[in-house]
Amino acid sequence: MSELRFDPIRRRWTIIATERRLRPHEFAVPRPAEEADVGACPFEHGSEPATPPQIASFPEGADWQVRVVPNKYPAVNHDAPLASESSGLFRRLSGVGSHEVIVETPQHARAMADMTPDEIARVMRVWRGRLLDLGNDSRIRYVLLFKNHGREAGASLAHPHSQLLATSVVPEFVKDELASARAYYRRTKRCIFCDLLEQELVREERIVLDNDGFVALSPWAALFPFETWLLPRAHGYDFALTPDSVLLQLAAALRELLRRVRAVLADPAFNLILHTAPVPRRSHHPSDVTAHAYHWHFELIPRISHIAGFEWGSGYAINHTTPEEAARYLRNVPTLP
Amino acid sequence: MSELRFDPIRRRWTIIATERRLRPHEFAVPRPAEEADVGACPFEHGSEPATPPQIASFPEGADWQVRVVPNKYPAVNHDAPLASESSGLFRRLSGVGSHEVIVETPQHARAMADMTPDEIARVMRVWRGRLLDLGNDSRIRYVLLFKNHGREAGASLAHPHSQLLATSVVPEFVKDELASARAYYRRTKRCIFCDLLEQELVREERIVLDNDGFVALSPWAALFPFETWLLPRAHGYDFALTPDSVLLQLAAALRELLRRVRAVLADPAFNLILHTAPVPRRSHHPSDVTAHAYHWHFELIPRISHIAGFEWGSGYAINHTTPEEAARYLRNVPTLP
Repeated sequence: MSELRFDPIRRRWTIIATERRLRPHEFAVPRPAEEADVGACPFEHGSEPATPPQIASFPEGADWQVRVVPNKYPAVNHDAPLASESSGLFRRLSGVGSHEVIVETPQHARAMADMTPDEIARVMRVWRGRLLDLGNDSRIRYVLLFKNHGREAGASLAHPHSQLLATSVVPEFVKDELASARAYYRRTKRCIFCDLLEQELVREERIVLDNDGFVALSPWAALFPFETWLLPRAHGYDFALTPDSVLLQLAAALRELLRRVRAVLADPAFNLILHTAPVPRRSHHPSDVTAHAYHWHFELIPRISHIAGFEWGSGYAINHTTPEEAARYLRNVPTLP
Repeated sequence: MSELRFDPIRRRWTIIATERRLRPHEFAVPRPAEEADVGACPFEHGSEPATPPQIASFPEGADWQVRVVPNKYPAVNHDAPLASESSGLFRRLSGVGSHEVIVETPQHARAMADMTPDEIARVMRVWRGRLLDLGNDSRIRYVLLFKNHGREAGASLAHPHSQLLATSVVPEFVKDELASARAYYRRTKRCIFCDLLEQELVREERIVLDNDGFVALSPWAALFPFETWLLPRAHGYDFALTPDSVLLQLAAALRELLRRVRAVLADPAFNLILHTAPVPRRSHHPSDVTAHAYHWHFELIPRISHIAGFEWGSGYAINHTTPEEAARYLRNVPTLP
């Protein structure tokens, strides 16, 4: 019997339909082998001239382990003036911002799931640094950090990398989450994500894994099969303020989650997206409750089901795997250390 | 140079990025031939026993031209009791409703673009009849009518068909559109869609085609390349109240649009979605301005670009084709009568 579940944070309905339920091995659609990159991969040691001039590298020099470069086909442009124009019903802004690629390792075939926690934490420190830096640009309102793994997830290069898109507008998903988090805070003086964590840790059935700092869970009204959220246990509204020690806990939890997803779903393509507070972070009006109300986290979406136009067009998803079942599979799969 | 456009009705931003602009023939990804359906197609004359017991057929009997059957894997269920449950932060409803398939013709290979306007109008009268009928069920709040063409659009059978999903909740996209339409009406005492049409017909650059009753246009902040809206010129909030003569105009306009899309984009997969007012339509509170504020229409989304998790995850789209360019291609392509 199907049911409709309401997400208290995203405030939208998902249809959880089990009539057509699949087992994980049925999801494990064999992925086409990644095409050999045409020519040399631009993200390896020695091919640095193939990218636009770099923004930063860590460490500096030819022996870099993490490197930040502009996206070759930027969706927004750093040099654009911030211009706004209205005409009749319509409004537009110039595409001002920054679109960057973070090369996570010089090794072409070293997926994040294969890195050590220290290596992943190094990537995360670079993410944090870019978010802090871009947050100082007064034209920027949000920095969207995401990682596409595999062609079906939109990755055009196989070499491990993540991206960030800094724009002068706040994306819809953050606005929606902020609106519910602020409303909840005004009503209860509590963070809705903290309350969600507390409730879910007691109920256990949607918990995928946890460590001292982080909890991974299947959200109650998951839009996609095996969608998983990774949240810090301690309240924090801004990923960019996370100290090194906590990034190391995050790296360990994310690595374990990626390995479990890979084991259960046969190395699926996926998107990993950071949800964090908008910038500028130092100019909050005293009445702004964002710092108390919002709670940064990552969302992982394995790309194992077709996103039908139906879902896009209708605004509600049909998910054929219950979150409890997905969590059970991910919790119980054996993974190597 | 890219720009951000704000949609006044959906109230969200799209990034219109032209750095990676494609020409239509580059979009025309060769579609894999539809797999031969395993066994006989269940939607042809003579194979009626292969579907669940039919809901209706037109005309009645073995010579039907349009047939309505329950979806074999329903996302919601007609017999479910309407039950609601809350626990902590979570809320759920039983999956009550109806999930139906409208077989549009007994001819397996007769795509809607190949039908005559009269044949298409016959399908539309069946759509209207189902919407009226389901609108009488007090448990139903919205009837979502849509058509998936091609595997990439989610169609699991090649035989021309559409679907409807009647649920006890109103989908997000309708809520958003209703909210902006009502707010606009309260401010101006006008329908935002009527004003949009008036403005666009003067500006012309986003108009795809029009006839006495209907206008097809590329929306100002299209989420997808070649997304097209088809709107009645005369104000009307509820598709189910459309008279036969207007359905015939609609059929002619939709046919022409489908033929143009097929010619420009080499028979792409697509989704076609009806946006109409929620039900029940006869119990409006006097203060409810929906009838004045909302304007039903169809939205067509060719499935020619990957929907990256980025878009889903972020809530804003990156569209690499400007609406003006898409409209120009669709307007100027020669089609056979």
